[in-house]
Amino acid sequence: MTITTESTLSQPSLPDEYTSIESEVRSYCRGWPTVMDTAQGSWVTDVDGRRYLDFFGGAGALNYGHNNPALKQALIDYLTSDKIVHSLDMATVAKTDFLRTFNDVILAPRKLDYKVQFPGPTGANAVESALKLARKVTGRESIINFTNAFHGMTLGALSVTGNSMKRAGAGIPLVHATPMPYDNYFDGVTEDFHWFERVLDDSGGGLNRPAAVIVETVQGEGGVNVARAEWLQALEQLCRKRDILLIVDDVQMGCGRTGPFFSFEEAGITPDIVTLSKSISGYGLPMALTLFRRDLDVWTPGEHNGTFRGHNPAFITATKALETYWQDSTFSDETLAKGTLMRDLMEKMAANRDGISARGRGMVQGLKFEDADLAGAVCKAAFERGLLAETSGPADEVVKLLPPLTTSEADLTAGLEVLDESISAALG
Amino acid sequence: MTITTESTLSQPSLPDEYTSIESEVRSYCRGWPTVMDTAQGSWVTDVDGRRYLDFFGGAGALNYGHNNPALKQALIDYLTSDKIVHSLDMATVAKTDFLRTFNDVILAPRKLDYKVQFPGPTGANAVESALKLARKVTGRESIINFTNAFHGMTLGALSVTGNSMKRAGAGIPLVHATPMPYDNYFDGVTEDFHWFERVLDDSGGGLNRPAAVIVETVQGEGGVNVARAEWLQALEQLCRKRDILLIVDDVQMGCGRTGPFFSFEEAGITPDIVTLSKSISGYGLPMALTLFRRDLDVWTPGEHNGTFRGHNPAFITATKALETYWQDSTFSDETLAKGTLMRDLMEKMAANRDGISARGRGMVQGLKFEDADLAGAVCKAAFERGLLAETSGPADEVVKLLPPLTTSEADLTAGLEVLDESISAALG
Amino acid sequence: MTITTESTLSQPSLPDEYTSIESEVRSYCRGWPTVMDTAQGSWVTDVDGRRYLDFFGGAGALNYGHNNPALKQALIDYLTSDKIVHSLDMATVAKTDFLRTFNDVILAPRKLDYKVQFPGPTGANAVESALKLARKVTGRESIINFTNAFHGMTLGALSVTGNSMKRAGAGIPLVHATPMPYDNYFDGVTEDFHWFERVLDDSGGGLNRPAAVIVETVQGEGGVNVARAEWLQALEQLCRKRDILLIVDDVQMGCGRTGPFFSFEEAGITPDIVTLSKSISGYGLPMALTLFRRDLDVWTPGEHNGTFRGHNPAFITATKALETYWQDSTFSDETLAKGTLMRDLMEKMAANRDGISARGRGMVQGLKFEDADLAGAVCKAAFERGLLAETSGPADEVVKLLPPLTTSEADLTAGLEVLDESISAALG
Amino acid sequence: MTITTESTLSQPSLPDEYTSIESEVRSYCRGWPTVMDTAQGSWVTDVDGRRYLDFFGGAGALNYGHNNPALKQALIDYLTSDKIVHSLDMATVAKTDFLRTFNDVILAPRKLDYKVQFPGPTGANAVESALKLARKVTGRESIINFTNAFHGMTLGALSVTGNSMKRAGAGIPLVHATPMPYDNYFDGVTEDFHWFERVLDDSGGGLNRPAAVIVETVQGEGGVNVARAEWLQALEQLCRKRDILLIVDDVQMGCGRTGPFFSFEEAGITPDIVTLSKSISGYGLPMALTLFRRDLDVWTPGEHNGTFRGHNPAFITATKALETYWQDSTFSDETLAKGTLMRDLMEKMAANRDGISARGRGMVQGLKFEDADLAGAVCKAAFERGLLAETSGPADEVVKLLPPLTTSEADLTAGLEVLDESISAALG
Repeated sequence: MTITTESTLSQPSLPDEYTSIESEVRSYCRGWPTVMDTAQGSWVTDVDGRRYLDFFGGAGALNYGHNNPALKQALIDYLTSDKIVHSLDMATVAKTDFLRTFNDVILAPRKLDYKVQFPGPTGANAVESALKLARKVTGRESIINFTNAFHGMTLGALSVTGNSMKRAGAGIPLVHATPMPYDNYFDGVTEDFHWFERVLDDSGGGLNRPAAVIVETVQGEGGVNVARAEWLQALEQLCRKRDILLIVDDVQMGCGRTGPFFSFEEAGITPDIVTLSKSISGYGLPMALTLFRRDLDVWTPGEHNGTFRGHNPAFITATKALETYWQDSTFSDETLAKGTLMRDLMEKMAANRDGISARGRGMVQGLKFEDADLAGAVCKAAFERGLLAETSGPADEVVKLLPPLTTSEADLTAGLEVLDESISAALG
Repeated sequence: MTITTESTLSQPSLPDEYTSIESEVRSYCRGWPTVMDTAQGSWVTDVDGRRYLDFFGGAGALNYGHNNPALKQALIDYLTSDKIVHSLDMATVAKTDFLRTFNDVILAPRKLDYKVQFPGPTGANAVESALKLARKVTGRESIINFTNAFHGMTLGALSVTGNSMKRAGAGIPLVHATPMPYDNYFDGVTEDFHWFERVLDDSGGGLNRPAAVIVETVQGEGGVNVARAEWLQALEQLCRKRDILLIVDDVQMGCGRTGPFFSFEEAGITPDIVTLSKSISGYGLPMALTLFRRDLDVWTPGEHNGTFRGHNPAFITATKALETYWQDSTFSDETLAKGTLMRDLMEKMAANRDGISARGRGMVQGLKFEDADLAGAVCKAAFERGLLAETSGPADEVVKLLPPLTTSEADLTAGLEVLDESISAALG
Repeated sequence: MTITTESTLSQPSLPDEYTSIESEVRSYCRGWPTVMDTAQGSWVTDVDGRRYLDFFGGAGALNYGHNNPALKQALIDYLTSDKIVHSLDMATVAKTDFLRTFNDVILAPRKLDYKVQFPGPTGANAVESALKLARKVTGRESIINFTNAFHGMTLGALSVTGNSMKRAGAGIPLVHATPMPYDNYFDGVTEDFHWFERVLDDSGGGLNRPAAVIVETVQGEGGVNVARAEWLQALEQLCRKRDILLIVDDVQMGCGRTGPFFSFEEAGITPDIVTLSKSISGYGLPMALTLFRRDLDVWTPGEHNGTFRGHNPAFITATKALETYWQDSTFSDETLAKGTLMRDLMEKMAANRDGISARGRGMVQGLKFEDADLAGAVCKAAFERGLLAETSGPADEVVKLLPPLTTSEADLTAGLEVLDESISAALG
Repeated sequence: MTITTESTLSQPSLPDEYTSIESEVRSYCRGWPTVMDTAQGSWVTDVDGRRYLDFFGGAGALNYGHNNPALKQALIDYLTSDKIVHSLDMATVAKTDFLRTFNDVILAPRKLDYKVQFPGPTGANAVESALKLARKVTGRESIINFTNAFHGMTLGALSVTGNSMKRAGAGIPLVHATPMPYDNYFDGVTEDFHWFERVLDDSGGGLNRPAAVIVETVQGEGGVNVARAEWLQALEQLCRKRDILLIVDDVQMGCGRTGPFFSFEEAGITPDIVTLSKSISGYGLPMALTLFRRDLDVWTPGEHNGTFRGHNPAFITATKALETYWQDSTFSDETLAKGTLMRDLMEKMAANRDGISARGRGMVQGLKFEDADLAGAVCKAAFERGLLAETSGPADEVVKLLPPLTTSEADLTAGLEVLDESISAALG
């Protein structure tokens, strides 16, 4: 089966502008060399009419699907009536509504007594402000990150990111973070936090005392590595005991990706600082939040600022998304059910072949290939069959699936069938 | 005269959400404590119907005014027809059109053989990528910045920013940049680049050899400090002779603020790297570009990436803005004329009083107060009279005006009358 | 028994100069508050005639005892005949003789094809030059050190030192080194280099690629932690496979402390770079060497220099010490035998009591106390009984013994008896 | 005239050990390729009996000449009677005597209420401890150094050193210091501290607030650059007003080189911290001191330590030197008179030729050559004629003279005649 039925179409290709004008740094348009035109829900259509089922999901920014109709109408209404679009961090009706709704629908029911910062429109802005705040509060400079972490491309965020190619891009030594092994880094052989706790408590250990630990509950870019609830709980305890702040970077795993709104809810932990972005606007519009314990709000007015902190169209769609999907547990329950469906089908794909294993939580799922090159070949074969999926992991050895949470069970099943075919094709 | 005629209205105030939920880091809503609702052109209206003439201009992000009608229609059409909104850096119709238009309307006519990078949606993203690239190309780590520079809040951008309060927010030492005196820093007494050139050429000078110099042609946040064309030319020569890259940060002064599209055109220089953001989308939507000489395009695919690099709605309004305003020199000429009008009126205000001087270029104009506190008092008085204007400079001693370039001469004149009244009020 | 028989003497005390003029940074004169006057072999006499058996051994600088007669005569002859004393790094007769003797007696018989650098007179100078050279050769900046390492107090050496109090003294973040667990850090539970190897080989591990590993074969200051030969061999293999330089800091453990001249000989490894100081002059005179593989000698003339590189009196005693002790294996064999004697007696002390364990190699031996405070109490009691011994380890929980290698078996036995009494006294 | 009369001697040369065993980093033995044997006062004799008049003076370590007889006898007596040689920082008779004498002869008469630290035996140790202390006291990290400064080769000291070749040797970015122009850097054109004061006081200047300024009163390695008394006074005022610590590095210029014991006495300033080394022992033995205001003595015991802090033979010769030369102003007056003699003769040499100028203070004097290569040629010609003198300055353009202060007027005159001949020879 292929999703795109128009088999008579020419090969997809890119216009000259991409090679003659755009920088060599471009990436996704290399693996998917076609020009996208329209999009709705889980489907994207290119200029030649080819349709793609999108299991890439804007790298986590499209949890409610492309151009979600409920959000779209609110957005168009806002723009049409000349409501204010750009306002830095002035007060606006859209911002007031968002703050109130975010508090009423998300924070209050979860008893999270957080203040909300608008740190700029990207996840990296949120991470930068989280690190700044942790350093300001503690007066310490060092941060603990984890193997295969991904937190962004600006210098502060990059310093806590693991990928060696991206780190090298900094052009200066990234020196204020020390990596520790993520959960299950040693395949269960070594006790949790053995090294981290020991070196922290050893006055001769040579580890600069950290201001904070920054962690993803599931490492998406790192290869769909899932931290167990008990590991996260132990990490929270470790931080509490030693007066180290715990930052959960929920940029990719928040907003329902693993089921609950925050990915750390399942573990029952309460981070000191939380970063959100990607799907927080609900419509793929740039927006980010930094949340932190009320008593950590030691910012001076304007100490961290930015031109696009107050992106009102994003507030509008964000508010609408919260109202539409998060008033009760229906959406969250459906995500968990769909996640189980995905995992079952993927376990089957893995069980039928050697060298493949399934991994994930909620609707972030992955297939890890012992032969790393296969993962890329599978994604290429999937694209040819109308399915968008990307690789992740340090050797690009994992096919990572982040379909919109709104994807129907039928589409999930169809897409996974294409994936199965693509694996067979890649295996030759 | 006050712009807002509804003098019977209650005092403006802020809802609880801003104190109970939003972080103490908020800033503009403190000086302008009212909730903005709608906006059109150079005017903003709050929830109580008060109208404000906007000489703040989104800190440079609203060069074409709020909700510019030509751009608005294109944006709504795009959204209505379910064109793809979020696409990371895939190829899209909107992106292709933008690349072609930007090349045809801006780069080619100016004989600028630049490649274009989409570094993420903010000016800080553009600055971070510019610094990374300069370091990668040269293999050096040190950057030269200038006194009172402002380049952004992420760690890389912050390291080249002058403001001591914002620098302290980093929480780690910002060490890879060395400040040099900006043009006229010594009030004309000292020869240009005296210190910089001498220490660069002295093998015992102790200055780490820089990868690049980053400069604003007019320092907006720094207090509307204007670099002379001959200073910029000398800086370009200095960099050329010593194989140092010249980065012009045109985030605030680009897109026509000083008249021509790029603020460096007047000086006839050709930077190696240019950053653009703020008004590049034309509609206040988050978007940024990094431009650089073709031979500097040594990026590895994906070496710098980000979720919101491909903000298609911003591409749509950006393309429309280029088509509407930059096909010929009309818009640029009008800006220069309006700038002259502004400057003449402001020189008069200064001439009539002691301790005030006018400064600026094109439509970025400022009044510097010897008694720094007066500048804040003037802005407060202006707000009460329906005019939005903010202070800048290291001691907040400058009233900075960045009205939309599309502001009518009548509104410019009216706004400056309010400013004149506000000064009188502040002087008591 | 007490060594000092003059029991009628007053309590030892310090003159005013030490509190009124010398800085608070002073340390040893606090624990041993008396004024030393003369010294011979393993014995020191204070101004009141009290005699002390010296098991502290100049922290490893007095392997041949105080004022060794064979060396003393050569030194006095040199000074008397007005041979040149200070010469920076000019050629001198004393230096030529040292270079030839060091090569003939030490390097050539061990087939070590090293070049010799005179980096300045202290161990820290040697470590600084070793780190510089490793960085220059590899073009990398990061260094791997080990938990509880001690390498010196200058900024480069301090950055690879573990002690948190001393690190804090730097006043700037020490950021270019990452600590790894030393041998047996986890009491044998975890496989060797589990974490180090895994994170090195993981392109997403987030560890900056190291230029070098710096290691002590026995950590003296760190608490007499002994690395096993097989651990050192595995470390050498790990470095070889990944093109990382191996630096052995033999400042305290070299010059015969563990038996052979170099402490790494037992393990059969060949470091890329070796640092020597402390006992290299043989007479307690400041002197240090940096040794490295011939092909690593990429220094530019004068790239690392210093006023006291050419301390000729130290060359004289150093040469004499090599001629006297290292022409054959007699001295080395005796050290091993005395080390066994020490260890046997110390194992007995430990066996008779709870909470004490013995550790060490050759003539560096220690007793570790589970109750860390006891170690200090034992050293205090020992001083009162005429024995000099100091504590080490992150909690000062280890009594460390570094007697001169020339100490007689009778004195070793007598001193250990005093130690045994001191333990009993401390235990109450 | 040549000093060495044995004109029939073969050419000087170096034994194989220097090329086959010693590292390429060696330097002085390259320019003076002969093996030195004995030395007395201002004269050195090589193994072939050639005599050299030493105007190099151990780079400032031999202010009292080679093997000064008064000091020599005290040293030999100490060693002969088995007084303790090595003692870390225990109290010893030699140390007590030194502390008392240094206080009585140097500090008290000058009303300098300093504490004394023994930071290790080299000038770099003193600088490292001075920087640590300044950072600890102020809680700030940044240091201001000056163009063409030289403070040492360890990482902390190197970070405040100007020489680009030596800085590059660090292998990591040296980032915590910012250079400012030394006195007369702009040949008198620019007002003193114009840039430094302005950028310090500008909250937008981008200069990290410094903990301390480190300065040499005369830059020896930097090219015999002499700071005027009024410049030093203004620097002290600048530091006082802004609560920045003033460190005078008197390692090379202290101990009488410029006349008074401390080189800063002439200017009448009182530094917060002073470093001494080189000639403090008086005999070329490794020794250094860090002096600081009593209230800055916030060190924790052992926070900065080192094996060779307590080099008793150096204390003995240091005490003897203080007693011999510093009880009254005779020695100081003689130095000033000899300095005048030197300067007069050197001014004549310069006056007779184009492109040469004289510079210096007390008995550090230099000739600067507009054609930098000439300086090296002059030193080479001088060596061939039996005179030792080295070049300094960023381009090695200055012939620097540091003869022992004890050099007779006859020898000074004779040596300067040789220098005059050497210039003529070099000029061809």
